[in-house]
Amino acid sequence: MKIVVLKFGGTSVGSIERIRKAAKIIISYVKKKYKVIVLSSAMSTVTNDLVKKSKKISKNFPHAEYDVLVSAGEQMSCPLIAGELIEKGFKSRSWMSWQVPILTEGKHKFSRISHIYKKEILKYLKSGGIPIVAGFQGINSKNRITTIGRGGTDASAIMFAKFFNSEKCIIYTDVDGVYTTDPNKLKSAKKLKVISYEEMLEMTSLGAKVMQPHSVQDARLNRVDIEVKSSFVNKSGTLITKKKNIINNSSNKIITGISSTQNDAKVTLVGVKDRPGIAASIFKPLSQNSINVDMVVQNISANGIETDLTFTIKLDDLNKTKKIINENKNINFKKLLFDKDVSKVSIIGVGMITTPGVTYRMFQSLANYKINIQVISTSEIKISVLINKKNVKKAIKALHSEFNLDK
Amino acid sequence: MKIVVLKFGGTSVGSIERIRKAAKIIISYVKKKYKVIVLSSAMSTVTNDLVKKSKKISKNFPHAEYDVLVSAGEQMSCPLIAGELIEKGFKSRSWMSWQVPILTEGKHKFSRISHIYKKEILKYLKSGGIPIVAGFQGINSKNRITTIGRGGTDASAIMFAKFFNSEKCIIYTDVDGVYTTDPNKLKSAKKLKVISYEEMLEMTSLGAKVMQPHSVQDARLNRVDIEVKSSFVNKSGTLITKKKNIINNSSNKIITGISSTQNDAKVTLVGVKDRPGIAASIFKPLSQNSINVDMVVQNISANGIETDLTFTIKLDDLNKTKKIINENKNINFKKLLFDKDVSKVSIIGVGMITTPGVTYRMFQSLANYKINIQVISTSEIKISVLINKKNVKKAIKALHSEFNLDK
Repeated sequence: MKIVVLKFGGTSVGSIERIRKAAKIIISYVKKKYKVIVLSSAMSTVTNDLVKKSKKISKNFPHAEYDVLVSAGEQMSCPLIAGELIEKGFKSRSWMSWQVPILTEGKHKFSRISHIYKKEILKYLKSGGIPIVAGFQGINSKNRITTIGRGGTDASAIMFAKFFNSEKCIIYTDVDGVYTTDPNKLKSAKKLKVISYEEMLEMTSLGAKVMQPHSVQDARLNRVDIEVKSSFVNKSGTLITKKKNIINNSSNKIITGISSTQNDAKVTLVGVKDRPGIAASIFKPLSQNSINVDMVVQNISANGIETDLTFTIKLDDLNKTKKIINENKNINFKKLLFDKDVSKVSIIGVGMITTPGVTYRMFQSLANYKINIQVISTSEIKISVLINKKNVKKAIKALHSEFNLDK
Repeated sequence: MKIVVLKFGGTSVGSIERIRKAAKIIISYVKKKYKVIVLSSAMSTVTNDLVKKSKKISKNFPHAEYDVLVSAGEQMSCPLIAGELIEKGFKSRSWMSWQVPILTEGKHKFSRISHIYKKEILKYLKSGGIPIVAGFQGINSKNRITTIGRGGTDASAIMFAKFFNSEKCIIYTDVDGVYTTDPNKLKSAKKLKVISYEEMLEMTSLGAKVMQPHSVQDARLNRVDIEVKSSFVNKSGTLITKKKNIINNSSNKIITGISSTQNDAKVTLVGVKDRPGIAASIFKPLSQNSINVDMVVQNISANGIETDLTFTIKLDDLNKTKKIINENKNINFKKLLFDKDVSKVSIIGVGMITTPGVTYRMFQSLANYKINIQVISTSEIKISVLINKKNVKKAIKALHSEFNLDK
């Protein structure tokens, strides 16, 4: 049996018109002799409206009831899709998670799928039916509804692709794929045909619009190839797959994409005592207050007594961070500086693992445009630099051209 | 265990404010040491919105998917009620029909509850919890959702009252009980403390605003006493119970209430052949076209050859009726007359079974006000007369006074 799993996100089923379009896409796969399993999200805005209602009742709305409430969204979208397919002459029916059943690990609000009972759906596929399965939900061992976090229908689709060993897993959404960089920042940005899970994970600022990082991680761990496509326009999308599939691809470029951040802030502590454990003593209270520190650089101490420590955080956390540092008696420093006009620009690509000189090319390219680098951080497949916000577009343009992404 | 079943209709849970009010009512019973089982409808307008969506897909939206779609309404209201009770410090949780489970006879869209598994809910009640059960829905033997018709949460509450042998079954709604007649038509209308199932069934025009006739019939067949109350004002409601409980009540009046219709039409066929089967030949095509004939009167034939036949139908069906009669070759008549300005006024009361002279008093009372009676029909506990619409208020006033309902 040639199975394809199709996932439709909220905007792709956001109106009756969109549901009709989704049905047409489903039918196109049936005509290509695929057995189609559909996973659907709630119609867009529905889930947010339900969350709002729960918040009116309580800021700490009980998680078990939250899951019952918000999973009602898929109970509305799925029968509408099935109804449209039946209207068009196909055999179809909706499947709520308790009917499959889809089992989860048990935790409310952020559960994970542990098992999918395949028997009924396989029988239905064989009979020529198109099952429309509610995404985002499962039941736990106590027979209660457990949802799997926002964007959880991607995770549902990935697990269905794994359990049914599907030939394809296609995520239909409102963007048409992953680009080399944000097309709003650079007109010559190109859509990628293929990207590795790892690159996708590193490319948060580009990737998050397409898929939540933890769904990419799910796909990676379960070795499920994912095609991201638009349900609005009929164009090829982007394939997210194993690194190996890409490294072996000779037409591959060294760099896959360039991302940039919007809301970072840089904090510098001048005149910090240069002794072991000083960094930890600063970052501990920040971490205890859920403040995520991203890039960190500690200057080499000129006098062996004092040094400067620079790090970046989310702009939203800046006031909280200043307060914590100023009020913490264990942190000794002479001056606290901060800068709101920074942005982190990153080049990402599995190709850099096997290609030397990438760092140099990046720095030289920015230097040619007189762009000053404030902080640097690197991983195996990503190099990030912190620069002044006003230079972001120029930097992206320079790097896009340097690494041949324009073609 | 002293169990009470509380049912909340759509307007009674129609907003977060209303849900808070419903929770307060629930808590008041908990404080009176009742074990409370709550049955809730969907928040008002939700079900209608879902039905509208299904109609945009298809005029013949498949019934099985319709049931999945519309039953999502209760999946939203129930967790919100449970959440509010938890917020107020009580133990509560929602229960969808498949979790109870509530079994139905199997038919989609208009199913009936055949069994309720009590074990889990009893255990939960004993533990001090307040179960909030989704009304209007059940599952059939194929594990699919089946709804039990509009207003079906009343039926759910009645079946819970029966299966759990509850002390009380209270329907909370947006009217505060059943009145002797429509308060909009007669200011001196009084709220009834008690009414029999049978009277309630006959009092369609008054009763339907409070409960659907088939729910009253459900209560009657299952011998469940029902109290109808408003969730908006704190007042005593109306008890709907067995005839016996009322006849034995010495303070009881002969007549319980007076109802009137708004949208009837009178049709008269002049010069119909007076032979056996003539009425059937006229009513058969009407019935085949789902036209409901209410009052019928066939004049005594003056010449033994021809007669006149008069009947009433819903005003909406008038054009269809005229067309059917005019196009049907088997119906011979000289002239077709119709009158849109008619209303059926009925006096209802189990008391008339044991009291002679009620008919006479009704007719005399109307005659005193010079109100002409066009058609008469009677049942054991109801006498109806068709009169000109302009006389309706006058007639209700006369009868209300004649049968001492003003007091």
